[in-house]
Amino acid sequence: MIKVAVLGATGYAGIELVRLLTAHPEVSLEILGSQSFKGQKISEVYPNLAGILDKECEEVDLERVKECDVAFTALPHGASKTVIPALLETGVKVIDLSGDYRYDDAAVYEKWYGEPHSSPELLQESVYGLCELHRERIKKARLIGNPGCYTTCSILGAAPLLAKGLADDKNIIIDAKSGVTGAGRGTNPFCECTESTKAYKVATHRHTSEIEQELSNISKKEIILSFTPHLIPQKRGILATIYMNLTKPCTTEELQKLYADYYKDEFFVRVKKAGELPETKHVAGSNFVDIGVCVDERLNRAIVVSALDNIVKGAAGQAIQNMNLMFGLPEDTALKHAGFYL
Amino acid sequence: MIKVAVLGATGYAGIELVRLLTAHPEVSLEILGSQSFKGQKISEVYPNLAGILDKECEEVDLERVKECDVAFTALPHGASKTVIPALLETGVKVIDLSGDYRYDDAAVYEKWYGEPHSSPELLQESVYGLCELHRERIKKARLIGNPGCYTTCSILGAAPLLAKGLADDKNIIIDAKSGVTGAGRGTNPFCECTESTKAYKVATHRHTSEIEQELSNISKKEIILSFTPHLIPQKRGILATIYMNLTKPCTTEELQKLYADYYKDEFFVRVKKAGELPETKHVAGSNFVDIGVCVDERLNRAIVVSALDNIVKGAAGQAIQNMNLMFGLPEDTALKHAGFYL
Amino acid sequence: MIKVAVLGATGYAGIELVRLLTAHPEVSLEILGSQSFKGQKISEVYPNLAGILDKECEEVDLERVKECDVAFTALPHGASKTVIPALLETGVKVIDLSGDYRYDDAAVYEKWYGEPHSSPELLQESVYGLCELHRERIKKARLIGNPGCYTTCSILGAAPLLAKGLADDKNIIIDAKSGVTGAGRGTNPFCECTESTKAYKVATHRHTSEIEQELSNISKKEIILSFTPHLIPQKRGILATIYMNLTKPCTTEELQKLYADYYKDEFFVRVKKAGELPETKHVAGSNFVDIGVCVDERLNRAIVVSALDNIVKGAAGQAIQNMNLMFGLPEDTALKHAGFYL
Amino acid sequence: MIKVAVLGATGYAGIELVRLLTAHPEVSLEILGSQSFKGQKISEVYPNLAGILDKECEEVDLERVKECDVAFTALPHGASKTVIPALLETGVKVIDLSGDYRYDDAAVYEKWYGEPHSSPELLQESVYGLCELHRERIKKARLIGNPGCYTTCSILGAAPLLAKGLADDKNIIIDAKSGVTGAGRGTNPFCECTESTKAYKVATHRHTSEIEQELSNISKKEIILSFTPHLIPQKRGILATIYMNLTKPCTTEELQKLYADYYKDEFFVRVKKAGELPETKHVAGSNFVDIGVCVDERLNRAIVVSALDNIVKGAAGQAIQNMNLMFGLPEDTALKHAGFYL
Repeated sequence: MIKVAVLGATGYAGIELVRLLTAHPEVSLEILGSQSFKGQKISEVYPNLAGILDKECEEVDLERVKECDVAFTALPHGASKTVIPALLETGVKVIDLSGDYRYDDAAVYEKWYGEPHSSPELLQESVYGLCELHRERIKKARLIGNPGCYTTCSILGAAPLLAKGLADDKNIIIDAKSGVTGAGRGTNPFCECTESTKAYKVATHRHTSEIEQELSNISKKEIILSFTPHLIPQKRGILATIYMNLTKPCTTEELQKLYADYYKDEFFVRVKKAGELPETKHVAGSNFVDIGVCVDERLNRAIVVSALDNIVKGAAGQAIQNMNLMFGLPEDTALKHAGFYL
Repeated sequence: MIKVAVLGATGYAGIELVRLLTAHPEVSLEILGSQSFKGQKISEVYPNLAGILDKECEEVDLERVKECDVAFTALPHGASKTVIPALLETGVKVIDLSGDYRYDDAAVYEKWYGEPHSSPELLQESVYGLCELHRERIKKARLIGNPGCYTTCSILGAAPLLAKGLADDKNIIIDAKSGVTGAGRGTNPFCECTESTKAYKVATHRHTSEIEQELSNISKKEIILSFTPHLIPQKRGILATIYMNLTKPCTTEELQKLYADYYKDEFFVRVKKAGELPETKHVAGSNFVDIGVCVDERLNRAIVVSALDNIVKGAAGQAIQNMNLMFGLPEDTALKHAGFYL
Repeated sequence: MIKVAVLGATGYAGIELVRLLTAHPEVSLEILGSQSFKGQKISEVYPNLAGILDKECEEVDLERVKECDVAFTALPHGASKTVIPALLETGVKVIDLSGDYRYDDAAVYEKWYGEPHSSPELLQESVYGLCELHRERIKKARLIGNPGCYTTCSILGAAPLLAKGLADDKNIIIDAKSGVTGAGRGTNPFCECTESTKAYKVATHRHTSEIEQELSNISKKEIILSFTPHLIPQKRGILATIYMNLTKPCTTEELQKLYADYYKDEFFVRVKKAGELPETKHVAGSNFVDIGVCVDERLNRAIVVSALDNIVKGAAGQAIQNMNLMFGLPEDTALKHAGFYL
Repeated sequence: MIKVAVLGATGYAGIELVRLLTAHPEVSLEILGSQSFKGQKISEVYPNLAGILDKECEEVDLERVKECDVAFTALPHGASKTVIPALLETGVKVIDLSGDYRYDDAAVYEKWYGEPHSSPELLQESVYGLCELHRERIKKARLIGNPGCYTTCSILGAAPLLAKGLADDKNIIIDAKSGVTGAGRGTNPFCECTESTKAYKVATHRHTSEIEQELSNISKKEIILSFTPHLIPQKRGILATIYMNLTKPCTTEELQKLYADYYKDEFFVRVKKAGELPETKHVAGSNFVDIGVCVDERLNRAIVVSALDNIVKGAAGQAIQNMNLMFGLPEDTALKHAGFYL
């Protein structure tokens, strides 16, 4: 059994992680870290867990973490990098769900986060935990920067075309629509959010830099792109619509084949047939990313639509996928279930 | 492996059954019956299943059903009783999700359904599949009348007080609020349903008779009660608020203890502590029924609130629980997971 | 023109009041009081008002209120009674949307609010602003205790049967379902609220006492009843399902006629035909209360369903209806529009 | 009083038209045309209208239309062009809410609708009813092709930059998110629609051609662009995110000024301040279009976000705005109200 600590167990990503881990056959949940709810049973805070996991939340004690094999950190923004160096010293592996360890280059971090990174040497060591792209490095990693929901959805949607060098790298536009779980616990009131859609942080969202980093690596050119996040009135689900001008003519069928080939060995990426498109309800609750492609032949432009669940493949599910890889388990352990649909 | 046929696999109860059965370790899904979608893969109709179950839907052929161990019938109203006699003759066990085989007395069926029952001898044989109440009979049954969502929620909520003879049997009122999955596939348009709540079939809903049958059995008196169904703008979830006048004074704490004792051996019934009440998000996606109780001491009236997921404990999940009992498996196989919460 | 001050203009009731008053032909909005947003334009806080009302919010200054004819107080709980005595001294009339001035008897206030009333003499003077019941007194009032949403819906639904002495006064049960606007600004997060329904404050909600006060007055007997509030995942809309045992047999048609007669001169109360029931989408955005009735003849029990919009007839609309009465305007001024439906 | 006939009064656009016209001081609703509900009162079909408009629906009789001044046609796709020639012969003016009379060129119609136009001479005569662009021609028109919701939102969002010649006309991308009212009555089931988002008709949606026609006229060049419609889980609201590469550098502030100037005399177009963006809840229920702009300086790309209510400015409201213009009334009559917000 893998002994697991979850730090930040009562945020949305944290609790989804806990929920998914209760069904993991090789995991023993040892520590549920929560500042806000210490001393309370997790099943009092999230009564859906009653009868399944009635363990108490606790403040984090490094002596206790030491007994674990892996710690997931699902902490508020900025908190990860203050605690992770000490966690690693206890000998546990760390999968961090924040943005703190996702960058190859400390200067990029500093540019987008507005402050120097406090442990640039760990940033150097950490692996970007997008399993489909960095599987082999993840297997050997001690520290994972688990990617965000917007970034996973965007990167996996754009990767195949860029890998083949078929996209004009100057005109990549990602228009992403996100459900409210992506914003974290308690952030959006029902009455302001239901029946409304908005764009926000246009041209300034931090995840732009993560997407650019990974797509630049894939295309072996520096990619700068437009990324526009939107908030839509649903809980789970991101849909990213990605526009890329083609460098040579291509039909929808050819593009579909290219994508299907690129992901042919990936269980969690489902490329739709030509003419079909993803919907967020097809992936809600699951670790799948669904991708549909279309060519606008009048304009020789590819339009790629990708969808995932913010807190599964976009957070907790991918974190478990990373753990499975790091501990030599089948990659889909505890993740091989269909989305809810309803 | 239990060989399973699902007839009506593409309705809401049917597809939830299929989804849950894909995670059942002892089940082999042999037949996905669907008139409307025969020849199509189930994963084309419900793309959440892609990569997990890509089997074709088919018209039902009794020769093929014969090879199965059990058939679930999740057919449109009235269709079950035309096909079930033939199914039983093939030797399979049948778990029927319709109202057709839920009555002890053919006259009650006729009164509420407006026509004589076509196979009253099977009605006699069939067992009402509310596992918590009829476990021993279910284990030996060949035909199960799997209860509906309103009825499971209402009966389990009222049972303990009636079993103890502590409720005035003349003033039982059940006010139930149901999500839209309870109404079946394609019945309610988004724009008419979202942001709206209504009562319907006041004093005339057929499930009243099922509730009365079971509560009469429990209380050993003829129970006639008021049952009011409401439609609320959510997919999954029923919340039943049950009002019963107490025959002798009692505190909330005493009532809570009575309920907790009554269900102390039931994994799927979670009685809340005094002062806590269920919410449908705590049970959505799970097979649990959550029950909270309260005494209005000014009026010596018990108010019991019970909650479940319409298509899990209220349909597909309970059907699997029945199958587990009938085939000697642990009752919670494939059902021991927490609700989604988010 | 009536000069109006709105204190608490940026809460949900306040902003709905402001929105409705922008379309009132006899009103000049002089003061938009808001502690939290003073110095900001109301149309910056609520951009739906841009181009229509771009007035600044301000802290309340009694010298400026003095110039007004009427002040609406839509303040946080408990704040009204600290400011209203001073407001009245400036000579303005006051319509208070809080619970502070809704009681005939200071002892009842004290019992349910847990502290003595600070201005019992004003409580004595204030009129309960349920226009359909107290129209003549409202016309002459200086201080109105504008009723809440649950109470308006419940009282108007139960009144006719109690006025005729046809209900057993020991078994009145009101099961009310409320949208989230009823809970006020910023109180319920989207992800916790959507796709979920719950009961809360069972047998202890303060509005029980208001309902009992008014129904006791109507029936000329002391009424004690069960009131159960529920939160449902929609913004606007309350649906109250009211159960009353009949003291003599009666058909649905007879009951419908009784209700239709009782409200025959009331523009804002629409009694449905026998066999029809209200839905909250029929009243959302409007000042109407829709009422449907049904008799469960097996039990000789009346089931009355009433519906209104929490922040219109349940708050801001009714407040304007009170103002219209107090200033001799047609009662439906600025309120004679249909609900949105969509 | 303007005598009005509404043909197709019970579809979503039709009923919104009827609802808004009940508050129009210069209109007398003479005919409510409905095939499906003839003989029934409109207030039985849409009970929100009870007490306000209890008129019967009727089959259309040209003799009765003749008595009217204007007919609105809100008919199912394709039906308009079979009835409008006859309507015009009765002497009434016609405002058509379908796509049938929105084209300058019959060949474009034929290309996108797949069949020749049956009355090309009327197509020649008809005026595209986007009031902000064609006000003077609308005033004199006999036949209006009232634009759709996607098109109004997209055209008004892109127009200023194209009019100034500041956008690269080869890289215009419009990513539009629409609420479900845009799809018409009864088209989308609640359970399939709530909690889900999808793109559809990528690169093939007919409204692309309308947008291209109008933007080509404005820019005096042939514009071909990408238009991607999405369905989002809300009733009212379209948000269009428009990407245009700038032909010369420009700041957000400069772009904002350009937009504000372009629309400075337009009551119904509200240009947000630099740094602010529209949300659909700000326009829901109103005839406003809200537009926010942003420049991604790294890429010299303008990102314009525009929002409106599908069935008000995107259908019924704009139709009334057209009528007001055609009959010499103030353009904002019956339309000068704020959106609901809640």
